[in-house]
Amino acid sequence: MADAEPATRPGGRTARVRADVLAAVEAELTEHGYDGLTIDGVAVRSGVHRTTVYRRWKTVAGLLVDLLNAGRDDTWVPADTGSLEGDLIALNREVYEALTANPSITQAVIAASFRTPEAAEALTEFWTDRYSRSAVVVQRAIDRGELPAATDPHQLLVTATGPIYHQLVLLRRPMPPATADHYARAAAVAARGGLRSEHA
Amino acid sequence: MADAEPATRPGGRTARVRADVLAAVEAELTEHGYDGLTIDGVAVRSGVHRTTVYRRWKTVAGLLVDLLNAGRDDTWVPADTGSLEGDLIALNREVYEALTANPSITQAVIAASFRTPEAAEALTEFWTDRYSRSAVVVQRAIDRGELPAATDPHQLLVTATGPIYHQLVLLRRPMPPATADHYARAAAVAARGGLRSEHA
Repeated sequence: MADAEPATRPGGRTARVRADVLAAVEAELTEHGYDGLTIDGVAVRSGVHRTTVYRRWKTVAGLLVDLLNAGRDDTWVPADTGSLEGDLIALNREVYEALTANPSITQAVIAASFRTPEAAEALTEFWTDRYSRSAVVVQRAIDRGELPAATDPHQLLVTATGPIYHQLVLLRRPMPPATADHYARAAAVAARGGLRSEHA
Repeated sequence: MADAEPATRPGGRTARVRADVLAAVEAELTEHGYDGLTIDGVAVRSGVHRTTVYRRWKTVAGLLVDLLNAGRDDTWVPADTGSLEGDLIALNREVYEALTANPSITQAVIAASFRTPEAAEALTEFWTDRYSRSAVVVQRAIDRGELPAATDPHQLLVTATGPIYHQLVLLRRPMPPATADHYARAAAVAARGGLRSEHA
């Protein structure tokens, strides 16, 4: 979900320290949850001196926020499968994998977002970036003539992904992988159905 | 969301004490959040002696769990509007109102569910009950011939409601009320679209 080493800053001691620290934050967070995340624990695991960690990140919330910010520096783009349904299924499978991984860094970060406002804000920004990048899926479908030009990309992407998050994160109800595909197909059918009704 | 006075137990001193205490829990939770919820605060606000509150509910988590359990004793049923789309819109409007109320007891309970496993479990049970009661919406649509008999009620209801929860609770992105209607319509179109493709 959040790549610890930003692709845009290869090498350099500062970049390496950040990569080591953020990798340790991910590991500590998934192992112990937000309550078990401490600056000292991150320092020990990363091999970076605790004074450095305190000086640069200040608080546990600061570490989490930087982890999410680092995720926005990566080069992730949604898969291009050639169809709206295929692209949404690929997207939903990524969401499903992230939420059902054991341990799941995504679940840990979501839980943390209910503990500190800084984490909530950083997560909102992380997702805003991810959903913006995913909008190309809708644009490609518009360009292919699969969808009307007025289709709202955000609404369509939330129609596809929202049910997975709701079921796995809030309802806390187990879900087979095929159901993630089902929610993607439902969103595609609904968006294309909108096309029909608009032209009717 | 959670009716403080269970409809099945009218009157009686024990029932009145419970109603007073749970009303105070709701009020304290929405005003101060889970971090600000204390047994002493609930005792003062409810006018019930703190020894009684401690003896019966034991912990803050115990108070929250009982609030959610009380919600399962109420007589809530989904609106019957005569069409699948109408029923889903009515349902989504209820979800939207609950999540955007200021303060929102639903948002407060969701946040609390990330703090204590007991609250998470009680919330899952509360929602399991609510989604079970809502399945009648899908059954009525099947009976009317709007949907194939094999339609999965839970999947359809999560397709309709999931995007609202995702956008307002996890993405923390403001949403106009019309978008809640849009997600309901998308779910109805997708479910009916599934009917078409199955018969194609």
